[in-house]
Amino acid sequence: MGIDTSLDGAPDGALDEALFNPRSVALIGATADQAKNNSRVQRLLARAGYAGRIVPVNPGRAEVMGVPAFPDIRAAPGPIDHAFVMVPAAAVPDAIAGCAEKDVRVATIYSAGFAELGEAGRALQERVVAVARAGRVRLLGPNCLGLVNVTDGVPLTINAAVEAEALAPGWLGVVSQSGSMMGALLSRAAARGLGFSRLVSVGNECDLGVGEIAGMLVEDPATRVVLLFLETLRDAPALARAARRAHALGKAVVAYKLGRSDVGRRIAASHTGAMVGADELAATFFRENGILRVETLDGLMELPRLALGRRPPAGNRVSVLTGTGGGAAMVVDRLGLLGDQVVPPPPAMRAELAARGIELSDSPLIDLPMGGGRGQYTTVLTALQRSDHCDAVVAVLGSTARLRPAQVQENILSVYEGGKPVVMFAAPQADAALRLCDEAGIAGFRTPEACADALHAWLNWRAPREVATAPPERLRAAAALLRQAGGHDTPRREGGDSLPRREGGDTLPRREGGDTLPRRESGDTLDEAEACAVFEALGIEGPGSRIVGGPDEVGAVEGPVAAKLLSPDILHKTENGLVRLNLAGAEAVRAAVRDLLATARDRFPAARVRGVLVAPMQRGLLEVILGYRHDPEVGPVVVLGLGGVLAELRRSFVVRLAPVDAATAREMVAALPELRVLDGYRNLPRGDVAALARAVEAMSWLACLGGATVRDAEINPLIVRGEGEGVVAVDGLIALGEAAREEGATP
Amino acid sequence: MGIDTSLDGAPDGALDEALFNPRSVALIGATADQAKNNSRVQRLLARAGYAGRIVPVNPGRAEVMGVPAFPDIRAAPGPIDHAFVMVPAAAVPDAIAGCAEKDVRVATIYSAGFAELGEAGRALQERVVAVARAGRVRLLGPNCLGLVNVTDGVPLTINAAVEAEALAPGWLGVVSQSGSMMGALLSRAAARGLGFSRLVSVGNECDLGVGEIAGMLVEDPATRVVLLFLETLRDAPALARAARRAHALGKAVVAYKLGRSDVGRRIAASHTGAMVGADELAATFFRENGILRVETLDGLMELPRLALGRRPPAGNRVSVLTGTGGGAAMVVDRLGLLGDQVVPPPPAMRAELAARGIELSDSPLIDLPMGGGRGQYTTVLTALQRSDHCDAVVAVLGSTARLRPAQVQENILSVYEGGKPVVMFAAPQADAALRLCDEAGIAGFRTPEACADALHAWLNWRAPREVATAPPERLRAAAALLRQAGGHDTPRREGGDSLPRREGGDTLPRREGGDTLPRRESGDTLDEAEACAVFEALGIEGPGSRIVGGPDEVGAVEGPVAAKLLSPDILHKTENGLVRLNLAGAEAVRAAVRDLLATARDRFPAARVRGVLVAPMQRGLLEVILGYRHDPEVGPVVVLGLGGVLAELRRSFVVRLAPVDAATAREMVAALPELRVLDGYRNLPRGDVAALARAVEAMSWLACLGGATVRDAEINPLIVRGEGEGVVAVDGLIALGEAAREEGATP
Repeated sequence: MGIDTSLDGAPDGALDEALFNPRSVALIGATADQAKNNSRVQRLLARAGYAGRIVPVNPGRAEVMGVPAFPDIRAAPGPIDHAFVMVPAAAVPDAIAGCAEKDVRVATIYSAGFAELGEAGRALQERVVAVARAGRVRLLGPNCLGLVNVTDGVPLTINAAVEAEALAPGWLGVVSQSGSMMGALLSRAAARGLGFSRLVSVGNECDLGVGEIAGMLVEDPATRVVLLFLETLRDAPALARAARRAHALGKAVVAYKLGRSDVGRRIAASHTGAMVGADELAATFFRENGILRVETLDGLMELPRLALGRRPPAGNRVSVLTGTGGGAAMVVDRLGLLGDQVVPPPPAMRAELAARGIELSDSPLIDLPMGGGRGQYTTVLTALQRSDHCDAVVAVLGSTARLRPAQVQENILSVYEGGKPVVMFAAPQADAALRLCDEAGIAGFRTPEACADALHAWLNWRAPREVATAPPERLRAAAALLRQAGGHDTPRREGGDSLPRREGGDTLPRREGGDTLPRRESGDTLDEAEACAVFEALGIEGPGSRIVGGPDEVGAVEGPVAAKLLSPDILHKTENGLVRLNLAGAEAVRAAVRDLLATARDRFPAARVRGVLVAPMQRGLLEVILGYRHDPEVGPVVVLGLGGVLAELRRSFVVRLAPVDAATAREMVAALPELRVLDGYRNLPRGDVAALARAVEAMSWLACLGGATVRDAEINPLIVRGEGEGVVAVDGLIALGEAAREEGATP
Repeated sequence: MGIDTSLDGAPDGALDEALFNPRSVALIGATADQAKNNSRVQRLLARAGYAGRIVPVNPGRAEVMGVPAFPDIRAAPGPIDHAFVMVPAAAVPDAIAGCAEKDVRVATIYSAGFAELGEAGRALQERVVAVARAGRVRLLGPNCLGLVNVTDGVPLTINAAVEAEALAPGWLGVVSQSGSMMGALLSRAAARGLGFSRLVSVGNECDLGVGEIAGMLVEDPATRVVLLFLETLRDAPALARAARRAHALGKAVVAYKLGRSDVGRRIAASHTGAMVGADELAATFFRENGILRVETLDGLMELPRLALGRRPPAGNRVSVLTGTGGGAAMVVDRLGLLGDQVVPPPPAMRAELAARGIELSDSPLIDLPMGGGRGQYTTVLTALQRSDHCDAVVAVLGSTARLRPAQVQENILSVYEGGKPVVMFAAPQADAALRLCDEAGIAGFRTPEACADALHAWLNWRAPREVATAPPERLRAAAALLRQAGGHDTPRREGGDSLPRREGGDTLPRREGGDTLPRRESGDTLDEAEACAVFEALGIEGPGSRIVGGPDEVGAVEGPVAAKLLSPDILHKTENGLVRLNLAGAEAVRAAVRDLLATARDRFPAARVRGVLVAPMQRGLLEVILGYRHDPEVGPVVVLGLGGVLAELRRSFVVRLAPVDAATAREMVAALPELRVLDGYRNLPRGDVAALARAVEAMSWLACLGGATVRDAEINPLIVRGEGEGVVAVDGLIALGEAAREEGATP
C-alpha cells in the first residue's frame, strides 16, 4: 500500500527486455490484408527496421508479408520472447497455452471481449489468466493497443495513430488505461514538441497493470517523466511503489484520472468493469505518494516540461509577472480559486528595484508599466528567480507575444536561469512564441486554465509521505480482541453491506451509487461492545458501557445513562425504539431494560439478543465521526468527518492514507474547517484537539494489522470534550475483512 | 436593476452613429511620428479608407500625415461628431472643454492616469466628467484603447493588434474592460474563423459603460452575439436592460468575468479602482438576466457559435456520442462535475435503433462499436437530434478526426439539422477537423474543459427572470416605519460598517477583505426592536418582545423569556454579558433587567440605553439567516443562509436578485442542501418550509422601496418551526441607505 517503501516489487529486467526489447516476436493472428488492423503490427515493425525475429502465426498461410508463417505458435522454431495476440477472444486461452508451451515471457493481448463486457467476459479473462499463471507467461491487456518502445524503435502496437505520426524519441513515458486516448495524447504531445521514450496501452490489466508498467518506465534511463491517463486504480500498491521509486530517482509521475463526478465514475466503471471509488480517495493517494495530478487535458500535456528534472517545491507561493494586465489576471484568479498563494514582491525586493528605477506596488500581480520595456521585464524576472519568497514564476505576455514572438527570447529566455520554474502564458493565440518556449525547455501554456492547473499540481507536489514510527505495542491487544471476535458465529447478512449503518447516518466518503456496483463479499461484523473494546485497546476512551442481561443485573446507577438493545441482527435501533436516553436512577434503568428486551422479543422474534448496553450519557463540545476503511482501490485510509445530520447533507470530511503519524493526524484535524470551533473560535470553549488527533492516529494503526484484517471501522459519534478532557467513543462498529476470516489477525 | 424591464435607457441612435459611424473625427494629440502609438488611429483610418473627415489636432503642426492640422479643436472648421483624445491626463479636461464648445457628441479618451491610479486620478477623472456633462459630451474611457466598427470599416483605436490582424467582418460584438485583452480576444477568435461586428474597449467607464455599450451592440443589426470580458460590474442596471433586450431580439450575451477568487477580486479592484463583490452575486446577476457565463477563456471563444441564433433550452440534458471512449469520458466527467445531466438514450430510441441493428447500452456515454462505422454514427446522431430527451448533443471524435478530417463531414456535418445544438470535441490535436466545423457553423472544441464549460453555460441559459407580481399593500406599512426610524437621531459610528454584526456571526456573502476596500459611507441603523417591527409589517412573525424601561415595568411573565439590553451604541452584547436567556418567572426577569441596566451603566457609561428587550424564548427545528442587501454592483439581493456557528465556518447560502416571487423563494429554500432536514429527511419532524419561503419573499420586497432605501437587512436567527407553525424572527437589524436618508422611503 501507500506506506510500503520496500522494493519487493522491483522491476524484473528480463521481463522489461521481453516486453520492450524482445529478440523475437510472434504475431498470433497475423494477416497480410493491409485493410485489417491486424496487419499493422507487422507493417510497423518492418517500417521501423526491427532487428529481431518476426514470427507470424496464421493457420491458413505459409507466409505473411514475405515472412514465413506458422499455423500455431507451438510449431514456430526457436525461442520467442514476446507474443502479440490478435485472435478472437474465444481463441485466446489456447493461444496463451501455446505461449506457455513455447516459454514465451510475455504476451500482449489486443483481442477484446473480456472483462470490459461484463460477467461472461470476466470469466473468460480469468481463464486466460489461469493459463498464463500456470505457464509463467506475463500478460499485457487484454483489450489493449499494445506498446511502443520509441527509444529503440520497437513498435508493438495496433494503434493507427502510431502509424500516422512521426514519433520523436524523447524523455516522456506514457501509460494509458484508455486505448483510444493514446492517439490523442501522442498528437497533443507532438504538437508541443515533446518526444517519447515508451508508450503503453494497458487495457484491462488482467496481469501487468499501470503500477508495474510505471515501475518499469521509472527504471528506464530514457524516461524522465511518466504520464498516466487513468480511468481507475487497479494496483495501487504497485503504483505507489513506482511513484516512490521515481521520487528516489529524481523523476516525476504526472496523472490525469477520470471519475471526478458521479457520472464519470459510472461510465468508467461500465467501461472497464472495474470498481471505481470516490475521487477524494484517489486524490489522497496521488498526493501522499508524490504523484502530480492535473485536472485538464492541456495541463497534462504542458506540465511535464515544468516537472522535468525538478524536485517537489518548498511551498505553493507563485509570482505572476506581466507587462499587460488582463491576461495575467485570468491566471491569478484561477490560481486563487485553486488555493495557491499568489504573492507580491517582498518589501526588500521592491526597495532594491525602486533604487534601479522600477517602482512595483504590493499587488500580487506584478504589472509593469510600459509593458515592461527598457529592460524592466528582465530585471524583475531575474530578481524573482533569485528570491526565496516564491516557488515559481509565471511570465505572462500580451499581444506582442503574437506580433513579435522574438520578445519571448528577449524578455524571458535570455534571463532564464533554469532553477526555479519560470513558465510562460501568452494571452493571445501565439503559436510561434509557444514554439520558442518548447525549444528552450520552458513550459508554455495555451490557456490560463491549463497554466493554473499545471502550476497548482506542481506547487502542491510533495515528496511521498513517510510513516515515521512503528505501530505501538497496544496494537497487539487490539489484534487479540479482533482474533477472538472474528471467531464467533455472527452470521453473514445476505445482500449488501454487512456493516450496520449508524442510526445518525454518516458523512464519510462511501462509494456512491454503491447499490449498482458489485459489492465485495464481506466478512464478519463486531457489535458495538466488541468494537468499542477494540478501540479502547487502541487507546481511545470508550463509552464506559456494560452489558446487562436483564433488569436484575442493573445494580446501582450514578448519573444519567443511555440504554440500547444489543443485537447483531437489528439495524436502525433508534428508529425501532430500541434506544433510551437520559435515564436517571436505577429504577428507570431497570424499567427501560425490561421494556427494550420485550420490544425486541415482540418485534424481532428471530433476532439474537445479547442483552442491553448501559452507558453513562456523554457530553462534550462537538460530535465527529472517525472512520477507517480498507479501500479496494487505494488501500487503508483513515477518515475524519463532522458528525450530525446537517453535516451529512453537506459532506465535510478529510481523508489520508493509513497509518498516519501524529503530525499528519494533527494536520487532518486542522484541515476540517468546522473544527475551528474547538480552537477558541468566537470565544467558544476550547476542545481537546490534541486528544482528537491521538484518536485519529490510533484508529489509523488498524492498517498495520495486514491488508484486509479490518475492512471497515467507524466511531460515530466520537465526542470531543473540553481542553484536557479527552475524547470519548460513544458508539462504533467494525467489519472484518478477508484476512481476518481466512487467517486470523496477527500484527 | 435586474427587474427593470422598461426601455428608459433605450439606445440613442445619434450617439450610436457618432460613436461607431462618425462623419468626422478629431484626433486630439495626433502625431506624424510613426513610432508613437498616437499615430496609429490616423494610420488605421487611412488604411481603412475612412470616408469621413479626419481632423488632426496638434498645436505644433500645420499638417499630420498630409492632413491639415489645427492647434486646438476649437479652431477646427465644421461640425465634429467624435473626438479621439490622446493628450496627457492633465490636458484632458481642457480637451473635453474644447469638445463641448465644438458640440462634439462623443469623445473617446485613450489617455491614462485617472481612476485606475487611485485617489488623485479619480479626482481628475471626476473633473473630466463634470466638464463633459456640462457640455453634453458623452465619454468612452478614459484609459481605453478605443473601438472598431468592423462592419463599416471604421477603426477608432490605438490597439496594435488591430493594425496587425486582418479583421474579418462578422456577427460577433466584443466589449472589454481590459484593454490589453482586446488583442488576445481578437487573435483567438480569428483563429476560430470568427468575424466581428464591433469591438469596444471601455476602460474606466467614467460615462459610457459596458451596459450602455452592450445595449448599442444589441441593437446593431450586424451583431448577433455580444461577448463581454469583465473585471467588475459598474452599471449593472444598464447591462441587465441590454441583456433583456438581447433576449427579446433573439441575440445572446456571453460573459467572462474575473474575480472568482479572493486574490482575483483584489487585483481586479486595484487594477480598476472599482469595488468588486462576491462572485456569487455576479453569477446570480448573469443567470437571472439571461447572460451566458463561461469560466474558461477557450469557452468564451468557442461558445458564441453554439449560442448563435439559439434560444435558451428547456433543460440541461445532454447526449454524448462517440466511437472512441476515452476522449468522450473526459467531457462526460466534467459535465457531471458541473451538475449537468448526461442522459442515456431512452428505451424507445434504443428499441428503434436495435431494430436497425444498432445495439446501445443504457450508459450515459453512447460509445458505438467499431467506431460507429457503417453509418451507425450518422443514424444515431440523427435520432438524437430528433428526440426530446436531450437538449444538446456532443459528438466526440477520436484519432480519425486527425488522420482523416473528412470524417467530420461524413459523420457529423452531413446529418446536422441545425436545430438542436450539435457540438464537436476532437480528442486529438485536430486543427483541420476543427476548421471544417468552424466553416459549417458547428461549435468545435479544442479541450474537454472548454467543451463542458461552454455547454454548461448554454444548458443552463434561461430567459431573464420576470417578476410576476406587484409588491403587496403591507409594504406601505413597512415603509412608514422606515421613514419614522430614518428620522431619529441615531449617530453614525465612525470607521467601518455601521451595521452591528450579529453576535452569532453570519454566513452571508459579505464582501471579503472588506477592511482593505473603501467602505461605503453608510446611513442610519435601526435597532433590534425597530427592525423587527419592520419585518413584522412585511408579514414575518416577530419575537413578541417588548421594551422594558426598568424592573418596575416587567409585570407578569408567562413561560421562559430572554432579556437583552437595547442600545444602539453597544456591539457584541452576548460577549459583553448583556443578554440573559431562559429566565423563568417575573422575579427572575426583574432581577435580570436591573442587572443588565447596571452592567451597561458601569461598563458603557457613554452609551445611550433605550431599555431592555424582553421576549419569549423561541424554539424550533432549525435556525436560518435571512438577509437583504442593496449591493453596489448588482443591486438588491435576498440571501438565505444556514444559521449557527458551524455553518459560519463553511459558508452555505443561496442568493437571488430581489424581489423574488413565491416560486423563486421556494426554489431558494430547495437549493440549500441542509434545509432538507426540514423535509422529512431521516424521519425528522417536518419544518414549515412554506412559511420560510413566504418570509424570503416578504424580505425581498424591500427592493421595491426604491434603489437604496434599505442598504442591508438581516434576520438572525430566523427560527423555523414545525409544519404549519410558521417561522419567527428572533433578532434582526436594518441599515438604511442613501435614499432613506436623503428623501425618506416611499414605496
